[in-house]
Amino acid sequence: MASIKITGQKRLVIISGRAYPELAEQVAAELETEVLPTDARTFANGEIYARFDESVRGCDAFVIQSHARPINEALMEQLIMVDALKRASAKRITVVAPFYPYSRQDKKGRGREPISARLIADLFKAAGADRIMSVDLHAAQIQGFFDGPVDHLFAMPVLLEHFRAKLDPSTLAVVSPDMGRVRVADIWSDKLGAPLAIIHKRRDPLVPNQVSVHEIVGDVSGKVCLLVDDMIDTGRTIVKAAEALKKNGATGVVVAATHAIFSDPAFDILQAEAIDQVVVTDTLPIPEDKRWDRLTVLPIAPLLARAIHEVFDDGSVTSMFDGAA
Amino acid sequence: MASIKITGQKRLVIISGRAYPELAEQVAAELETEVLPTDARTFANGEIYARFDESVRGCDAFVIQSHARPINEALMEQLIMVDALKRASAKRITVVAPFYPYSRQDKKGRGREPISARLIADLFKAAGADRIMSVDLHAAQIQGFFDGPVDHLFAMPVLLEHFRAKLDPSTLAVVSPDMGRVRVADIWSDKLGAPLAIIHKRRDPLVPNQVSVHEIVGDVSGKVCLLVDDMIDTGRTIVKAAEALKKNGATGVVVAATHAIFSDPAFDILQAEAIDQVVVTDTLPIPEDKRWDRLTVLPIAPLLARAIHEVFDDGSVTSMFDGAA
Amino acid sequence: MASIKITGQKRLVIISGRAYPELAEQVAAELETEVLPTDARTFANGEIYARFDESVRGCDAFVIQSHARPINEALMEQLIMVDALKRASAKRITVVAPFYPYSRQDKKGRGREPISARLIADLFKAAGADRIMSVDLHAAQIQGFFDGPVDHLFAMPVLLEHFRAKLDPSTLAVVSPDMGRVRVADIWSDKLGAPLAIIHKRRDPLVPNQVSVHEIVGDVSGKVCLLVDDMIDTGRTIVKAAEALKKNGATGVVVAATHAIFSDPAFDILQAEAIDQVVVTDTLPIPEDKRWDRLTVLPIAPLLARAIHEVFDDGSVTSMFDGAA
Amino acid sequence: MASIKITGQKRLVIISGRAYPELAEQVAAELETEVLPTDARTFANGEIYARFDESVRGCDAFVIQSHARPINEALMEQLIMVDALKRASAKRITVVAPFYPYSRQDKKGRGREPISARLIADLFKAAGADRIMSVDLHAAQIQGFFDGPVDHLFAMPVLLEHFRAKLDPSTLAVVSPDMGRVRVADIWSDKLGAPLAIIHKRRDPLVPNQVSVHEIVGDVSGKVCLLVDDMIDTGRTIVKAAEALKKNGATGVVVAATHAIFSDPAFDILQAEAIDQVVVTDTLPIPEDKRWDRLTVLPIAPLLARAIHEVFDDGSVTSMFDGAA
Amino acid sequence: MASIKITGQKRLVIISGRAYPELAEQVAAELETEVLPTDARTFANGEIYARFDESVRGCDAFVIQSHARPINEALMEQLIMVDALKRASAKRITVVAPFYPYSRQDKKGRGREPISARLIADLFKAAGADRIMSVDLHAAQIQGFFDGPVDHLFAMPVLLEHFRAKLDPSTLAVVSPDMGRVRVADIWSDKLGAPLAIIHKRRDPLVPNQVSVHEIVGDVSGKVCLLVDDMIDTGRTIVKAAEALKKNGATGVVVAATHAIFSDPAFDILQAEAIDQVVVTDTLPIPEDKRWDRLTVLPIAPLLARAIHEVFDDGSVTSMFDGAA
Amino acid sequence: MASIKITGQKRLVIISGRAYPELAEQVAAELETEVLPTDARTFANGEIYARFDESVRGCDAFVIQSHARPINEALMEQLIMVDALKRASAKRITVVAPFYPYSRQDKKGRGREPISARLIADLFKAAGADRIMSVDLHAAQIQGFFDGPVDHLFAMPVLLEHFRAKLDPSTLAVVSPDMGRVRVADIWSDKLGAPLAIIHKRRDPLVPNQVSVHEIVGDVSGKVCLLVDDMIDTGRTIVKAAEALKKNGATGVVVAATHAIFSDPAFDILQAEAIDQVVVTDTLPIPEDKRWDRLTVLPIAPLLARAIHEVFDDGSVTSMFDGAA
Repeated sequence: MASIKITGQKRLVIISGRAYPELAEQVAAELETEVLPTDARTFANGEIYARFDESVRGCDAFVIQSHARPINEALMEQLIMVDALKRASAKRITVVAPFYPYSRQDKKGRGREPISARLIADLFKAAGADRIMSVDLHAAQIQGFFDGPVDHLFAMPVLLEHFRAKLDPSTLAVVSPDMGRVRVADIWSDKLGAPLAIIHKRRDPLVPNQVSVHEIVGDVSGKVCLLVDDMIDTGRTIVKAAEALKKNGATGVVVAATHAIFSDPAFDILQAEAIDQVVVTDTLPIPEDKRWDRLTVLPIAPLLARAIHEVFDDGSVTSMFDGAA
Repeated sequence: MASIKITGQKRLVIISGRAYPELAEQVAAELETEVLPTDARTFANGEIYARFDESVRGCDAFVIQSHARPINEALMEQLIMVDALKRASAKRITVVAPFYPYSRQDKKGRGREPISARLIADLFKAAGADRIMSVDLHAAQIQGFFDGPVDHLFAMPVLLEHFRAKLDPSTLAVVSPDMGRVRVADIWSDKLGAPLAIIHKRRDPLVPNQVSVHEIVGDVSGKVCLLVDDMIDTGRTIVKAAEALKKNGATGVVVAATHAIFSDPAFDILQAEAIDQVVVTDTLPIPEDKRWDRLTVLPIAPLLARAIHEVFDDGSVTSMFDGAA
Repeated sequence: MASIKITGQKRLVIISGRAYPELAEQVAAELETEVLPTDARTFANGEIYARFDESVRGCDAFVIQSHARPINEALMEQLIMVDALKRASAKRITVVAPFYPYSRQDKKGRGREPISARLIADLFKAAGADRIMSVDLHAAQIQGFFDGPVDHLFAMPVLLEHFRAKLDPSTLAVVSPDMGRVRVADIWSDKLGAPLAIIHKRRDPLVPNQVSVHEIVGDVSGKVCLLVDDMIDTGRTIVKAAEALKKNGATGVVVAATHAIFSDPAFDILQAEAIDQVVVTDTLPIPEDKRWDRLTVLPIAPLLARAIHEVFDDGSVTSMFDGAA
Repeated sequence: MASIKITGQKRLVIISGRAYPELAEQVAAELETEVLPTDARTFANGEIYARFDESVRGCDAFVIQSHARPINEALMEQLIMVDALKRASAKRITVVAPFYPYSRQDKKGRGREPISARLIADLFKAAGADRIMSVDLHAAQIQGFFDGPVDHLFAMPVLLEHFRAKLDPSTLAVVSPDMGRVRVADIWSDKLGAPLAIIHKRRDPLVPNQVSVHEIVGDVSGKVCLLVDDMIDTGRTIVKAAEALKKNGATGVVVAATHAIFSDPAFDILQAEAIDQVVVTDTLPIPEDKRWDRLTVLPIAPLLARAIHEVFDDGSVTSMFDGAA
Repeated sequence: MASIKITGQKRLVIISGRAYPELAEQVAAELETEVLPTDARTFANGEIYARFDESVRGCDAFVIQSHARPINEALMEQLIMVDALKRASAKRITVVAPFYPYSRQDKKGRGREPISARLIADLFKAAGADRIMSVDLHAAQIQGFFDGPVDHLFAMPVLLEHFRAKLDPSTLAVVSPDMGRVRVADIWSDKLGAPLAIIHKRRDPLVPNQVSVHEIVGDVSGKVCLLVDDMIDTGRTIVKAAEALKKNGATGVVVAATHAIFSDPAFDILQAEAIDQVVVTDTLPIPEDKRWDRLTVLPIAPLLARAIHEVFDDGSVTSMFDGAA
Repeated sequence: MASIKITGQKRLVIISGRAYPELAEQVAAELETEVLPTDARTFANGEIYARFDESVRGCDAFVIQSHARPINEALMEQLIMVDALKRASAKRITVVAPFYPYSRQDKKGRGREPISARLIADLFKAAGADRIMSVDLHAAQIQGFFDGPVDHLFAMPVLLEHFRAKLDPSTLAVVSPDMGRVRVADIWSDKLGAPLAIIHKRRDPLVPNQVSVHEIVGDVSGKVCLLVDDMIDTGRTIVKAAEALKKNGATGVVVAATHAIFSDPAFDILQAEAIDQVVVTDTLPIPEDKRWDRLTVLPIAPLLARAIHEVFDDGSVTSMFDGAA
């Protein structure tokens, strides 16, 4: 036959944006490889440039970027890297976005709004991404925004492992900070065998124009409250929730969240007396000077590394969470 | 100049699937026009055929189908009609799906599941739909599954108008039948100025393998409870919720839902003593022999007709819900 | 170099819809493997659900479905399975549709008709299918409806092998049941070395509004007639053809067809005296109680299995039919 | 409101390739307009260039090209014109291809063949065509190759009108030149109320390797035979058919076809004694020196002009053929 | 007929990003309308949000954004606005990007680079843009990156008009600052009837590792030199060119450019003695405190407004530049 | 697990169009394989047909075509081959177009022009090409016209190697034949360490309507001039440039170009006295009778073969040009 035959090979390559390079380095270390050397720069007028120093032809590329502030810079850099990979003949390109950007704008709450979370999926597709990997999407429906496989990882096993040794179910209550996150709290309540409480924000009928009263649905008196949420942004909701819990007799308030956005004034207010401890993962970078003694940051790299290995090796990401979440 | 000029015209056409032709007829009547005569048939082997009896060239077509059981027949018929419109040079094609099919499979709850609600959006797109119109999507994120405009209508104004005259806020409680629908109940609670309660299903720790206990979070004693949900399928959840409410001292239980799927055994069990009244809209057909005295069916056609008119006339669908929802 | 290398592997997976699971099981058995365990269900409101019990990441998946009545259920189930495979990172997805659904609506016979056979190809594409495999397409042009490879298999070798031992070319005539299928009959005539006859349906000029007279073009007197067609639906055309052949002196009528749709009243009328034997394949399921003594059902699984093996192993499907068809 | 409103207008523009400019001029004349002045050229190395001399912004453009030999030049020129229209902001672009190029390669007859007719549809789409208009497609399924509206026109009314006055049904027979075109002949037979005959080419069993014998199925003795086909290419099939008919007692042979490809040696052999008359349309140009006395060329421009007008004016193309075809 | 007919209307809407709102306001004023009121905001974590305060259903929308630093913010905001327009049923969406972002990364200069200018076109397409309007693209080939119409405007008429009154051709020389921009300088030279000179940067063969020497090709002694370029970024190239010109006997140096990026240290160094005057347009905002006495800023809004009007009204953008550029 | 596993293989296949089969044969020979046997033909009416004689299932196919006159035939043949490969289940299809057709129409120079070079990229994509390989694109931006990897090869190393031995830098000048190609000449100047000169065509101000005067910018007196361009079409520009150089004292004129289009009257005029030597590659075929003694044709096959090998083997094409271009 008129042809040349050779055995096929697969090659895994880890690429990193500049938002949180330590994360990709940790992932690469877990996989016993290195991040691909890359020349990424920002020009004087703000345009971003990226070029890979080694051939990526035929590779299975994972482009890890942490979508921290300035979030649009992080996003454009990742899109540019995906474009460069596509044009350099990478075989398969997986966008790794531990914190999915714009995930809260996942629907039209009102007319004439964008659905930015879908737009993000479309932009990744347009740039050339074949797959997306993310952790704890704000709404699981975001998986359906991308026309291709989405590996949706859960940080819960990481967080649970941390808490199991430290919290006593008999004195514990799991608390949802608002009506929209009740379902997640419900799962935690089930996993930990602890009762559930909900904080209900509503208008005060006695005071006109006053936006909200924090009512607690369920019993928290004498309990250590585990306040669970997928992300902490400015921290205002969480602090008010913690204060309401303490006011209602909670003996302790521990906060658990996957994504530590920590926009201002989070650093200042999360150190409030009402909050005894905050436990997050590092899907987003938290600089040393923005950490405090009662903050615990759990590394997300092992989870990402394991998932990337399963994807590369045609294993099962689903099985990573069997029994756990 | 080498050309012929004429003034542009827009032509609205209402097309109906066979699942619930009365709905399209009511919509057309509201718009003071008629449903386009169509030859739709099912062949002996189950294949569906459709052909329009009049030209649809250049028209602004709205294809109304009610996705009742057998739901896949209704869906294929609508896809076939959209294909026929595309090939017959319709200018714009809007799929009107008052109940969005497969809306509950809107995410991968577990690995290796489909996201059927996204698949449905992709099928409509592949057939040639330019736009989708639907009522009370199970998750608002489904809007983002379609790459184009989605007119998301709310039945709440229709239902609210019915209840306002009949219920006394001072003795009323709004109840969510489970943790996943709390947000909707919260809006009702706010609109009606009535307190909120939630039914919490959880495993009974005393009885192994027993699936759930219905705990009521919030006070319902001496209250008329308005149980709100987006859809009623077999009715089992609602009936158990109603029974739990009565057991906890509720003096009345009224159920409000947009989509009356009413799969077996809904007709039988919804007539249970615990439920005093059921109020739904007819986004799905409810045959006369499947109605009972304590069931009220509110017509959805006026809402659809108004929205179609706004879309055709480049008005505003958003403004239809200002102040109301 | 900053990368991890491993040898590439290919993994074949057979997946089955619920319309005719025995077919997929036979195909798997021929390939010395098993059908992938799958949880496929229909909910109370008619919505279909499917989930694979094992990882399909990186696999070469063949989704076998038999498009029997209710045909739209079979179709939607297959689309949902393809969507689930796509989202579960299958590497390549081949839709195996032994009988291509809606294949007779392959053109606009009149204005404002759909081209449903193209729509089906578009739906498969939209769901995520990379390839299609089918047997004896109603029109070979349907291959061109799909933007990708179509493996078009021919049942003729299977049928020919059966007949070669049983029929005597010297007393045989090959008959086309109508003008539209003449080309297929022509090939049979050539393969078997037997003369050709055609049944010509036309309006009777003497009787107004009478639809058709069955004229036989060619000589069938004293012949055993082999009536060949790609499919038998209600059987009416075939029975009338057989009767006309017998009336014109045929000593025997044997019917050969690939697809046994057998819609009502096929089971009843195909047992008519005029037809001595019916030979079909099982591209569509034929339940035991819908079979009769003069019906022979040839298994299609060996052909499908061989083709799937060639596709998986980068062999040649074309070579399977060299010399035969 | 912050906006400017004006009444919408539609503007029809006729654009012509260089293969047969007279056709577009006739179409424009029928529509009482002119062909848009265009600068179309071929450079020294064979590359084609086209530019429109007037603005086409917002127009409804019909690009008429006759796909005569050299057919690939005609095709590329039309694709380039479509690209230029798209980039010049034409509102809608209709490719008018009276003879659809590559229409005979509409399926994979054997493995590893292209489906060029589908490729052509894809190329038109890629260039920016919104719609296609064509006359007497070789297979009606080609409509399904394009993802958009195809206006499929029939020349039969034009040809029938010509013949009705000239042929006597009582002495007429309609003849199909081979098995593949029987269906078309069947329609003619029905329209003219004349019997049908078929020419059957088959291998001569007595002479090895001899390709074909022309058998006549049906009675043609003493008849004037109307040989109908969609196209005449080299003319060899038609001439052999005519000779066979005369040999079998036909008193006259008249040939009717839509597309006069007339590749060599058509001009020479079609003047054979066996053929009394050839009637075609000018979907393809027939130069004056390639015409002969017994050839009648009917103009196709009126049909195209009427269809273009219906399309532009949102009328009905289907209605043009009611009662006729 | 079963339909409703109304006369079609077109509605123009001007939408503005936040990078340079004054530009959109000036465009709107030229068109005698107003910018559509829009709620655009940046959240604490850097995510951008936009919502239109009035209905945009059926409108012809022009989204004006100036891609100034921070350029990725400006870009994402515009993409989000396009997405919102698409989902709000705008009829046609034109991205107006007076300075096309990332236009200098328009090819792979080396392997494994992105082609960011193409990526930008793909992102606009993915978001929903139908058309692009831009001024003086860095390479005219960027037009071909977008699959749709690109209105490419030229600032030359604006700049020329300014210079014609002020410069004397007899003492003038047009100078290209490097080899890559010679073609543009050539056009200016032709328009102004003045000779051309080129500045040639090359390695100094006498000094190892020294990057470049500025050689002047052509005679500039005793001339007023008009240095022309499409953009001024840091200004370094221009300043060095001016110094070389003066050293070679130029009596004056005037700089003309369309896009005033003015990244640091442009403001400081462009005030160098060697440069007598800088003339630019305001495709990018130039704050008052970044202007100096010898800088002239010509408004680009009249050009944009005229082009938008031609596009909206199906006129001719091409004719705007006849005779001028 | 229910699956079959085998080791993956890659198979390289070289396919050739008919424009210049010797080129593909040389490439195959360099790779120590053979061109895949293919049946390619042109039918009487000009339609092209192609079929591969061996299975191409799963292969990595490189389709080599030389886009010589008649260029549209060469293009259509290649598109048809790509379509056939796609439908025959080739795994990856690379279009090898050593001379990219229509590369000079890479932008809209004026309104209402096509961007044919982008159209070509779109046609290749529509047919099914995954990748493009080309040599010395007229504008590097053409890479960005294709949505996928483009391997852009440079002939400069081939040409440089030829010249290095033959030309003395101390008496050499590199000359650009016009303003548009200065950048390429600049690179040559740098590589060879020789000064640069430019030929400037401009209107003669003294003679109205006279198109151009050839001015030489830079010193060529007493020099051997190396006139460099990417392509030679009719040769007129080059001949006039050579004459101008000689008139200005050049002692020799050597022409170097990658693409020898050689349209009429190139063969005749390039043999002019003013040109001492012409050196080209054979990206386009140059028949023996169109060669002359002072013409040197360098083979391009080794470069193509090496690049194809790198692509097939996931090596680096970029590294082929390190240090050289």
